[in-house]
Amino acid sequence: MRALIPAVAAAFLASSAFSAPPSDVGYDIVEGLTTEVGQRLAGTEAEARARNWAVARLKALGFANVRIEPFDMPVWVRGAETAEIVAPFPQKLVLAALGNSGSTPDGGITAEVVGFSSLEALKAAPDAVVRGKIVFVSHRMTATQDGSSYGYFGAARRTGPSIASNKGAAAILIRSIGTDHHRVPHTGVQNWTDGATPIPAAALSVPDAEQLERIIARGKPVQIHLALTPRMTGVHPSGNVIAEVPGRDPKAGVVLIGGHLDSWDLGTGAIDDAAGLAITTAAAKRILDGPKPKRTIRLVWFGAEEEGGFGGDAYAKAHGAEKHALTAEADFGGDRVWQFRTHFADPKAPLLAELTTALGGLGVGPGSSPAHGGTDIGPMVQRGTPVIDLEQDGTRYFDIHHTADDTLDKIDRAQLNQAIDAWTAMLRVVVDTADPLAALPPQPQEN
Amino acid sequence: MRALIPAVAAAFLASSAFSAPPSDVGYDIVEGLTTEVGQRLAGTEAEARARNWAVARLKALGFANVRIEPFDMPVWVRGAETAEIVAPFPQKLVLAALGNSGSTPDGGITAEVVGFSSLEALKAAPDAVVRGKIVFVSHRMTATQDGSSYGYFGAARRTGPSIASNKGAAAILIRSIGTDHHRVPHTGVQNWTDGATPIPAAALSVPDAEQLERIIARGKPVQIHLALTPRMTGVHPSGNVIAEVPGRDPKAGVVLIGGHLDSWDLGTGAIDDAAGLAITTAAAKRILDGPKPKRTIRLVWFGAEEEGGFGGDAYAKAHGAEKHALTAEADFGGDRVWQFRTHFADPKAPLLAELTTALGGLGVGPGSSPAHGGTDIGPMVQRGTPVIDLEQDGTRYFDIHHTADDTLDKIDRAQLNQAIDAWTAMLRVVVDTADPLAALPPQPQEN
Repeated sequence: MRALIPAVAAAFLASSAFSAPPSDVGYDIVEGLTTEVGQRLAGTEAEARARNWAVARLKALGFANVRIEPFDMPVWVRGAETAEIVAPFPQKLVLAALGNSGSTPDGGITAEVVGFSSLEALKAAPDAVVRGKIVFVSHRMTATQDGSSYGYFGAARRTGPSIASNKGAAAILIRSIGTDHHRVPHTGVQNWTDGATPIPAAALSVPDAEQLERIIARGKPVQIHLALTPRMTGVHPSGNVIAEVPGRDPKAGVVLIGGHLDSWDLGTGAIDDAAGLAITTAAAKRILDGPKPKRTIRLVWFGAEEEGGFGGDAYAKAHGAEKHALTAEADFGGDRVWQFRTHFADPKAPLLAELTTALGGLGVGPGSSPAHGGTDIGPMVQRGTPVIDLEQDGTRYFDIHHTADDTLDKIDRAQLNQAIDAWTAMLRVVVDTADPLAALPPQPQEN
Repeated sequence: MRALIPAVAAAFLASSAFSAPPSDVGYDIVEGLTTEVGQRLAGTEAEARARNWAVARLKALGFANVRIEPFDMPVWVRGAETAEIVAPFPQKLVLAALGNSGSTPDGGITAEVVGFSSLEALKAAPDAVVRGKIVFVSHRMTATQDGSSYGYFGAARRTGPSIASNKGAAAILIRSIGTDHHRVPHTGVQNWTDGATPIPAAALSVPDAEQLERIIARGKPVQIHLALTPRMTGVHPSGNVIAEVPGRDPKAGVVLIGGHLDSWDLGTGAIDDAAGLAITTAAAKRILDGPKPKRTIRLVWFGAEEEGGFGGDAYAKAHGAEKHALTAEADFGGDRVWQFRTHFADPKAPLLAELTTALGGLGVGPGSSPAHGGTDIGPMVQRGTPVIDLEQDGTRYFDIHHTADDTLDKIDRAQLNQAIDAWTAMLRVVVDTADPLAALPPQPQEN
């Protein structure tokens, strides 16, 4: 006879069958935020829940001056998204709309495909070749440790839709800006330029893009039925969550660090950018738990980065006039730091030697090109704030970036902890350095 | 001034921007079938297109007696499938219905989740714990070279739904029977046993299952809204596609080989089982192109394997009375053969030494357990046909198996060619061996 578990024990089983992982500040932030909130698209109710989660966690960790600084933004949300090849070889394709994509009618559109192996080929094509067609651009991005390939290949996403629209295309599909081979498309923002009319714009997963390449290569006309129904929902609140490690000397200027709280809506934003929040917050927590630093660390969990840096802009508008000694952000996943770069007014600043000493033991050497920060701290860098980049290994970052696969299991705890160690070492130096950390001349604004 | 490509050249670009890969018989079958047909769910119009594609390809390769042998089968097709955690942490989950899954109302159902870390825990639970709930079984399968973990862990898929139904569950979700960490759920067949009422039954992707585990572990009641609308569409035609390499001696018996033509509907069936068709067909083609063998090779591209071996049953019903000297099938991906196993009437058959000699040079040694064939040739093995298994490396097979990720890019051409070489070596021996290849006693039928 089979032993039965009593009902009370079995009910208990429902919550205890799965045990919780061991605990530490950095990993717990990624684990908690991705589990208890999940995706947190900018300007949505999910991002608001994430802000509340953030305030509770940052207060519980003992940070000072924890607060939300709200701002408004136009909000885009995903709708239905389906595509199928109608001819010559009927089959479905897996895709995801790009941020700010236009929409098809609910029933979709059917049009012939015209394929280009690069964005340059699309640019060079006469309008007549493109007009009324579904443009397909198949930029093949490859992995790089420093993530530099994202700049060139990412242009297909950032500017391809506007170029296609201006040539009269009915829609545009791009090969995902990613380095994996899974059926998980990579979304990402694009903005309509030059008065371009919004058209449906989506990324095929890499295997789907390669499938479409093969089908086009067969030489028969290719027809696709495409239904994409994303929409702009109007202006809604987002916000930055701010916490501080108070310093002894208000005149020494603030050290501004952080990552972004919002994520794309497909995954749970583990590597992009719960990991950046974890790294910067765990490092700041170590300073908080030690002797009071000279400079205040201001930790910002920026809102609405993915849609174009609304959080960074809002921060700079509110705080740009305050003295900032230095800034750094973490928005490149959870893997190890392998190099650091700086951009200081004095190219031989004493701080450089201090950093080299502090980071060398962690396997982090100085890079040869200047630091530039990222989207969130970009407006402060443009205003002349000195900046440090702690460069993380991006070899596998674009396998996961902006996909449904951006989930907790992609976090390598050993690498995450190395990044926290590197950030802690950097912060220990900059919060107390005697280096004057003079401001740089403001940079011209990008357009 | 930017040079413009003339319209004619640009139109040409549309079909020539992507070049075709280099050619060989085996890879071309995988490439062609997955590209020109794609998914080919049993009993659907897509599988019918696949049969036509198969006939054309097998005739073009010069095989004899190429024909379709039709049979009928009940057909199940996927519908909508969405799930979201309603409480305590609202978020969507990625899942795929299991074959023969029941359906929810179109609007879905909402119910509390009761989680079990193994199928055994579900079996042991009193009905009262399960009744009206959504059961979640999180069997954690691990990778093995020989694929043996599929037997034990796969039971959660094969029998979990009936067990849950018989206990009064509203629905069942299982952790995908897979070894990857991507948001691509693993479907697969299950059959309702013991008069179990069909209930909605689906597999969560591995990251989603781990997410649900973490959320259950938080200890608050978990509510899920689930909408699954697959349906049985009635009885429809499927079929086996048969081709032969004629032998010199009709009395020597047929060597029956093959794989299955149908695939699940999520991927394009590259490793499961276009690869098996490629391996067996390319090897048979080499025999076809050489001296006429003593025995006829009968190559079968079986229909409707995934839903329960309808093609294998139909073959045995039509041909079971014919003399079969030997059988072997390839249905374990496209990776290298690392071992062979046999099941012969004479455990010291001379053929064993011949095979060991022929395969040793390819890195393929004899295994210690008996061969058992697979689903398609199973009915002939049960009738006593001697069988050889050329065991392929399954280390990464269950990363991909039954998912949307089963696409051409997963084929490793070097490994595929090694498998073709091994099959060729095996066939060269068995088609001409003087070994009598005596039949075994029939095995009892499985229930």
